[in-house]
Amino acid sequence: MTEIKIIKKVLAANDAIAELNLKFFAEKGILTMDIMSSPGSGKTLILEKTIARLKDKYKCGVIEGDVSTTNDSVRLQKLGVEVVQINTDAFGGDCHLEAEWIKDAALNFDLDNLDILFVENVGNLVCPAEFQTGMDFNIVILSTPEGEDKPVKYPLMFRESQVMIINKMDLLPYLDIDVKLMKDNAKKINPELKILSLSAKTEEGFDEWIEWIETEVEKKKVPLRIKVQEKKSD
Amino acid sequence: MTEIKIIKKVLAANDAIAELNLKFFAEKGILTMDIMSSPGSGKTLILEKTIARLKDKYKCGVIEGDVSTTNDSVRLQKLGVEVVQINTDAFGGDCHLEAEWIKDAALNFDLDNLDILFVENVGNLVCPAEFQTGMDFNIVILSTPEGEDKPVKYPLMFRESQVMIINKMDLLPYLDIDVKLMKDNAKKINPELKILSLSAKTEEGFDEWIEWIETEVEKKKVPLRIKVQEKKSD
Repeated sequence: MTEIKIIKKVLAANDAIAELNLKFFAEKGILTMDIMSSPGSGKTLILEKTIARLKDKYKCGVIEGDVSTTNDSVRLQKLGVEVVQINTDAFGGDCHLEAEWIKDAALNFDLDNLDILFVENVGNLVCPAEFQTGMDFNIVILSTPEGEDKPVKYPLMFRESQVMIINKMDLLPYLDIDVKLMKDNAKKINPELKILSLSAKTEEGFDEWIEWIETEVEKKKVPLRIKVQEKKSD
Repeated sequence: MTEIKIIKKVLAANDAIAELNLKFFAEKGILTMDIMSSPGSGKTLILEKTIARLKDKYKCGVIEGDVSTTNDSVRLQKLGVEVVQINTDAFGGDCHLEAEWIKDAALNFDLDNLDILFVENVGNLVCPAEFQTGMDFNIVILSTPEGEDKPVKYPLMFRESQVMIINKMDLLPYLDIDVKLMKDNAKKINPELKILSLSAKTEEGFDEWIEWIETEVEKKKVPLRIKVQEKKSD
């Protein structure tokens, strides 16, 4: 019982910091996204291709979460974007990122000149869904080889996400996968979920994803504040 | 700090029960395996094909772990084997199985007539490696589309396993995957790891896996105890 109570306290503390993160990034006018999936679903390749398309128009930053290694950070830095790595093996090999680590990592960026902040969470379809990081959008990636039943078997992740990307559409001819059923399963868990199908490898379906980001980033821009010069009465 | 201490206590308690499980199944002469992987790597299909090949020769049982649904149990029951389902959403959606749940679930089997007990863990490449269930072998499945870097990015799972199955070998022609590098990465983490490559779909490479199980199941058989009839002196 003690264990359960403490875990609930940890989650509540995390949620409170996530709430602060959300407000903080909104004030800065930064669009924020937490990209989550199992290992090997294609998070890093999607980020590489996405940033390559956006980086001339928008200033992007990435917080890279992994249990171990800086492999993904090295890949992303080649694109010339700022990357901050969080390795959870420093925290006992944790299976998720927490809101406080995002808050601390964010301070490494030039936040007044950032348009988009991507968080690449630890590869895991269970735990990261329990820990809100305070991003505008939770984005779950499910790749076609993983099977159509995953939304019903790991429902929390699909309930807590606003966008689902079905990746590796190029492999469809070689798999016994029913993408319609995959989508139906996801909608059964979360009827509001926006679903995009694409291939990070061939970039099929990528235009819609990029257009969606561009629409959202424009919505986030903070209107210039009108400075009212108070006239002193003397 | 409190949280970390309690987690350590939970892990130590789990390890103690795992130790008891190991002894208990050894006394019964049952070969036990904990099958672990990310969601969608092919755990259930490998089990289906494996049991179909073994069931006329050996009595098999399965403990099926999932966050939610009994989909996989239904699939396996069709083979005529006994299946016990553990849904972790009853325990707050846990991302792994624990030794105590295995102990309790095992009591549902006719243990004196069981040769092999398979545990299909929750789909997750991180957490199940932290919780020993007390099986003879931890078996990690990594499928080719997941990428060659996973052993170094999620090292604990590969360190805690004795056998690694590379699944979905049939997809190799359609992927940019270097299987040799995948194996080298795994061996770097755990030089003792036995690695088998196969396709559950085409059953390519399956013979070696089945032969390995057959060898291990024979090793486990308890020699008939010689009953010594004590002669009462009167």
